[in-house]
Amino acid sequence: MRMFDIIKKKRDGEELSTEEIKYFIDGVTNGSIPDYQTSALCMAIYFRGMNIRETCDLTFAVRDSGERLDFSAIDGIRVDKHSTGGVGDKTSLVVAPIVASFGVKVAKMSGRGLSHTGGTIDKLEAIDGFNTTLSDEEFIKQVNDIGFAIVGQSRQFAPADKKLYALRDVTATVDSMPLIAASIMGKKLAADDDCIVLDVKTGSGSFMKSIEKSKALAQLMVDIGKNAGKKMVALITNMDRPLGYAIGNSLEVIEAIETLNGQGPEDFTEVCLTLTAYMLSLAGKGSVKECREMAKRAIFDGSALAKFKEMVAAQGGNTALIDDTAKFSKAKYTHSVKSVMRGYICKVDTEAYGLASLALGAGRNTMEDKIDYSAGIILKRKTGDFINVGDEIATLYANDESKFAVAEKLLLSATQIHEKKPQDEPLVYCTVE
Amino acid sequence: MRMFDIIKKKRDGEELSTEEIKYFIDGVTNGSIPDYQTSALCMAIYFRGMNIRETCDLTFAVRDSGERLDFSAIDGIRVDKHSTGGVGDKTSLVVAPIVASFGVKVAKMSGRGLSHTGGTIDKLEAIDGFNTTLSDEEFIKQVNDIGFAIVGQSRQFAPADKKLYALRDVTATVDSMPLIAASIMGKKLAADDDCIVLDVKTGSGSFMKSIEKSKALAQLMVDIGKNAGKKMVALITNMDRPLGYAIGNSLEVIEAIETLNGQGPEDFTEVCLTLTAYMLSLAGKGSVKECREMAKRAIFDGSALAKFKEMVAAQGGNTALIDDTAKFSKAKYTHSVKSVMRGYICKVDTEAYGLASLALGAGRNTMEDKIDYSAGIILKRKTGDFINVGDEIATLYANDESKFAVAEKLLLSATQIHEKKPQDEPLVYCTVE
Repeated sequence: MRMFDIIKKKRDGEELSTEEIKYFIDGVTNGSIPDYQTSALCMAIYFRGMNIRETCDLTFAVRDSGERLDFSAIDGIRVDKHSTGGVGDKTSLVVAPIVASFGVKVAKMSGRGLSHTGGTIDKLEAIDGFNTTLSDEEFIKQVNDIGFAIVGQSRQFAPADKKLYALRDVTATVDSMPLIAASIMGKKLAADDDCIVLDVKTGSGSFMKSIEKSKALAQLMVDIGKNAGKKMVALITNMDRPLGYAIGNSLEVIEAIETLNGQGPEDFTEVCLTLTAYMLSLAGKGSVKECREMAKRAIFDGSALAKFKEMVAAQGGNTALIDDTAKFSKAKYTHSVKSVMRGYICKVDTEAYGLASLALGAGRNTMEDKIDYSAGIILKRKTGDFINVGDEIATLYANDESKFAVAEKLLLSATQIHEKKPQDEPLVYCTVE
Repeated sequence: MRMFDIIKKKRDGEELSTEEIKYFIDGVTNGSIPDYQTSALCMAIYFRGMNIRETCDLTFAVRDSGERLDFSAIDGIRVDKHSTGGVGDKTSLVVAPIVASFGVKVAKMSGRGLSHTGGTIDKLEAIDGFNTTLSDEEFIKQVNDIGFAIVGQSRQFAPADKKLYALRDVTATVDSMPLIAASIMGKKLAADDDCIVLDVKTGSGSFMKSIEKSKALAQLMVDIGKNAGKKMVALITNMDRPLGYAIGNSLEVIEAIETLNGQGPEDFTEVCLTLTAYMLSLAGKGSVKECREMAKRAIFDGSALAKFKEMVAAQGGNTALIDDTAKFSKAKYTHSVKSVMRGYICKVDTEAYGLASLALGAGRNTMEDKIDYSAGIILKRKTGDFINVGDEIATLYANDESKFAVAEKLLLSATQIHEKKPQDEPLVYCTVE
């Protein structure tokens, strides 16, 4: 088999065989295929696409390029939720304890944030003492004991994806459905879950800007997951505005705790309830409607928050912070961003909000950067709200006053104000099964 | 400027600016652009193409990536002929002396053969003592003194093309019109001619298998040349059969000498006269028809052969070989390939004929291989000829008898025999101006 022939075949619009795709990914993983051939094939795939069989083969080859987890020692149904990444997205912190409170297992491996998107692991590390590194035995034991655990990806899952993505990123071949789907699902399937709910973000804060494209990607990933024997569903959710009001690590943990307490923002609570309903339903706990009521109950009766606290305690975090969020360490400085216009907030550039938070120190530009856990933004007004000149749009938090100028600039120019009230947009556009 | 943006722009079907194309080729030349980005861009160009402005910019950037020749010290009009490469193509050896015999200058830099195609420089080196390496001063002096010189490409013309081609060759991006045109013309325009006649080969022995594609490529190259201020014409010539009867270095030189003597094969003589007519006409010597008569006369009155001999003498070759071609050193062994069928030769795979000659030792697989000048093939029958079982199709020449088996096999399977006489095909399909 020669890589040249594989490139030519795809270039000419032909279907690649399972063996050819395996040969390609094996060569990427062990370095025997030079980057210039890999990038040429990625560009040919960009133009010619891949059918579902090829895309599944690509995904499975990516998954099999590194270690795979074995969760068979976990008792009961294992369900996971995977988000394609957004701004202010702290849903994992809320949905995992709710689901676990019903005996459904959540063995979660999460990532760190990069650029404008945050990461669950960074958020959890805002809790004093919280340990995101467990051994396999500790991890499985905790999931069996209290129903869930959230740890960082300490090992090299799907190393082919890491190499492939780095190359796609510099050769304008990221934006290809089969390559995106294989990248996300190749990593996801290296874990060992029974059911997966995908949260495909769409809009200005996500990497999929249109609903049509998001739906196509969601369908592809659902089909791949089913081909791998998983129960699958995807929700297309709105990322044309940040989720909730808090952006930044400890600020988001506080908002998640408030939500588990039944006092969270309406939009964020709604998305969490919907995701939880599908997770529980896939795990066989009833209809989506029934599971939604169960989820509401778990918040109302305090069992979800208790489960969260149990997990924080098990992973070494200071639970006093959960009982009293005022104890989270605060940023030294705050700054009010005030409107210079009057009218309705009709549209925001969510990505720019994420970048403003990054500028305050809450995120990282490269994987080596340190995060300032207390930095971030609390929004005071969101899309659809009326605002007067001088009204506060947001409060900025930072430990370095000089960071406010850039963040304020970003935030103001990302917020469009108009005299007409904008139409309400749904939080969840649709479900893909 | 970032290579990423250039790739993305072309990927999205947009036109690249002159500056972007220059940036790309400069980066290829100095190595600052990594191969994986170059191959991704080549694949995007494969799919999206380039308009004539972009293709000219690409060609000129390739031309300017290395040294350019200055022929201003040559008196008179300088004309060159460039062939896209074929089997048994010894036209340069005939057209250059005819043209030079009329005072039109031919300052020719030629290449070496690779795989199934031969090279003019290799053929000339079959003449004992012939020197294909002259200094610039010697070269220009000889062209001024006797009207023409043929030397090898000692210097690094268009180094960007060399790098680009090596990469395209392994990434399935060779087959792209703008990239092919820029490669050929980028090198050609590094020389300093006033007029260029392109001989675009089409058919089984050339890299362009269809007439339509050959015409499109010819038009593109003619337009590029005109944009560079050259007088241009292209002929689309038939490479569905070898040109003449001889394939192999000294065998081809002998056939060229016979042709200059007025005793060459009809097809080869015809193509040489047509090419010469256009070369002389572009140089202002009269209409194509008039120039064709002049060319015939130069063969008839011996002035073309005399000019060839003069050139051989000037470059150190043994002219006794020209006076008596029997003096060329012969291969030790010959072998008759006989037909096992009865009928008309209706079709031949010219590339396979070239590969048979290569197998006999007449060519090289890699640029490091040594050539056996006396090895090769003399065809006894060509397309359209009738043949009986046992009739000789060709005589093979080699210095190693063990090489005959492969060459015979190639030759026989490349020769299709059928009971019906095939239709005559033109030698020159058309002219592109």
